[in-house]
Amino acid sequence: MASSPVTMMKMKVNDCSPPSTTAARLLPLFRRHQIHFRSSVGPLQNPCFPRTIITHASRSSFSSSSVITASMTTEASAKVIDGKKIAKDVRDEIAAEISLMKDSISVVPGLAVILVGDRKDSATYVRNKKKACEAVGIKSYEVCLREDSTEEEVLKYISGFNDDPMVHGILVQLPLPSHMNEQNILNAVRIEKDVDGFHPLNIGRLAMRGREPLFVPCTPKGCIELLHRYNVEIKGKRAVVVGRSNIVGMPAALLLQREDATVSIVHSRTKKPEEITRQADIIISAVGQPNMVRGSWIKPGAVIIDVGINPVEDATNPRGYRLVGDVCFEEASKVASAITPVPGGVGPMTIAMLLSNTLLSAKRTYNY
Amino acid sequence: MASSPVTMMKMKVNDCSPPSTTAARLLPLFRRHQIHFRSSVGPLQNPCFPRTIITHASRSSFSSSSVITASMTTEASAKVIDGKKIAKDVRDEIAAEISLMKDSISVVPGLAVILVGDRKDSATYVRNKKKACEAVGIKSYEVCLREDSTEEEVLKYISGFNDDPMVHGILVQLPLPSHMNEQNILNAVRIEKDVDGFHPLNIGRLAMRGREPLFVPCTPKGCIELLHRYNVEIKGKRAVVVGRSNIVGMPAALLLQREDATVSIVHSRTKKPEEITRQADIIISAVGQPNMVRGSWIKPGAVIIDVGINPVEDATNPRGYRLVGDVCFEEASKVASAITPVPGGVGPMTIAMLLSNTLLSAKRTYNY
Repeated sequence: MASSPVTMMKMKVNDCSPPSTTAARLLPLFRRHQIHFRSSVGPLQNPCFPRTIITHASRSSFSSSSVITASMTTEASAKVIDGKKIAKDVRDEIAAEISLMKDSISVVPGLAVILVGDRKDSATYVRNKKKACEAVGIKSYEVCLREDSTEEEVLKYISGFNDDPMVHGILVQLPLPSHMNEQNILNAVRIEKDVDGFHPLNIGRLAMRGREPLFVPCTPKGCIELLHRYNVEIKGKRAVVVGRSNIVGMPAALLLQREDATVSIVHSRTKKPEEITRQADIIISAVGQPNMVRGSWIKPGAVIIDVGINPVEDATNPRGYRLVGDVCFEEASKVASAITPVPGGVGPMTIAMLLSNTLLSAKRTYNY
Repeated sequence: MASSPVTMMKMKVNDCSPPSTTAARLLPLFRRHQIHFRSSVGPLQNPCFPRTIITHASRSSFSSSSVITASMTTEASAKVIDGKKIAKDVRDEIAAEISLMKDSISVVPGLAVILVGDRKDSATYVRNKKKACEAVGIKSYEVCLREDSTEEEVLKYISGFNDDPMVHGILVQLPLPSHMNEQNILNAVRIEKDVDGFHPLNIGRLAMRGREPLFVPCTPKGCIELLHRYNVEIKGKRAVVVGRSNIVGMPAALLLQREDATVSIVHSRTKKPEEITRQADIIISAVGQPNMVRGSWIKPGAVIIDVGINPVEDATNPRGYRLVGDVCFEEASKVASAITPVPGGVGPMTIAMLLSNTLLSAKRTYNY
């Protein structure tokens, strides 16, 4: 991106502003800051919590290891959680383990991916997964089926991979074409190879105390891994999960609860979600709404994990769009103690966790 | 119980007092009330929420159908949710359905109960279940095994019931003797006959949007049934579940979320749980701590479902003890808009829901 930091900053602040503040959008940055400092009310501030943006009090202590400081204006102070770096660390560790495993028991973990149809984004994901597998030494098996394939064909391939001892993980790329029953197809994957962790039996075990899931879904697992690697204490903390999807929000809430956080789940039916997020020491947001979580929604010192990857129009970008999270980064980074960026936060962790689950499966198969 | 209402009231208020207020315990009722009205602080009041006990503002509207008014002093105003009556209504509906089913397809639902060991409380539960089955027309099958039976023996009986077409529900009475692996035994029950709903596959489906559990665990199902039958709106409401057990707290939270409540789960690691419960429109408490939830923990107008059944010493009772809930009824009934008593609240609902699950299973087997 060619824009200067100041220009980019203005653009991003613009993104976070609600439609009613169009006039304010056009103010140059220094003017906006003047407003913040001179008044405790304004379009970006909540009268119930007027000092969230202008004060930096109550920051929680936070380990600085592996932390890259945000290159923001002087107002920004949240540490940026570097998902790209952590994902690389995880992949390096996996590669080392696989190499050792190969040497000692001559086993190479295998991951099968089934792609149906010709969605560009899905094809990109699958390509990235394949590359990531190769880089760490996981053998990848790929099946690409036409959009008009039948459910039976997909099930036939799943059945083949279920029985194939070289394959330790099976992943069906979602979404499937609308004529297929996603539930039937996902349920066909043997639970021992369900590296996505989406099987209800896995989810049930995740929910239950004293039970262990075979696999934890990759994205929420990646969120928790980021918290662990940045030494964010979870036990006894208030955590709010924004979104209750089967893939991220719900399992993230279950994982946080397993770690003894006190969890609240906010969703589309929640009235005044900001009153709840404002109590959180940790927020995980996974709703797919660009910049929905504003600075005023956040308790000073909170840690923010932003799972959203939302394309927004951007004429200055050669692709005509760029990616933003569910959280308004500019506002949040002035209030939070740590925050994941988008892109480069949770995103890279998902594939790293998929590799981790595949390795885990291979190790379990051979009691290694 | 022979005590006069006033004496009982005093006793119950005493129960709710923390140990440090032993002196206050001995005060006659009117004196305690004087203290409440004269001061906004005191052992039973929280300075952050000083008016919860002395004001009756903000009560939510609440359907009065099937509601019996609490026979308390003038201060009490919460409607008492009559679990005994609702459970009887449910049982009557089940009996009518079973009678119809028998007439039309000649099928009688069957419930098998396996009891291991000679715990008195378990024997009582099993006896009550048997009686309840008989009353609605469910055929009950009972196996009583010695405390020193092997896991294999229990599994053999489960296997037999799994294959028996007359049996539509199998229930293993918990707790099992310590030499048995509870998980192995519960997992052996065919999911189609798991009327307890404790199988991880059921719990997983309960957690997932777009999936349906075969059975919902009986006690949390009973809690939600009480809310439904008393026309308590759940959608969009703040709900707090106190406790996160596999049997009650966790599935209750999942059920509330399925009904579009915004749910928070409070547990033993939660700091200042009262700050969270005070935000709740609905509280379900299932921790097994007598009178833990005080009046000051409750938002005026909230609806309270008290799952706890805790024996406390009571020299005036011929048995030497009596049962109280997790919630201090006397304090709570002055703040809440509706509350379940203990006993006579959630308790009778559990068996009613077990019968309901057994009927459901039989209907499903025959596509009835």
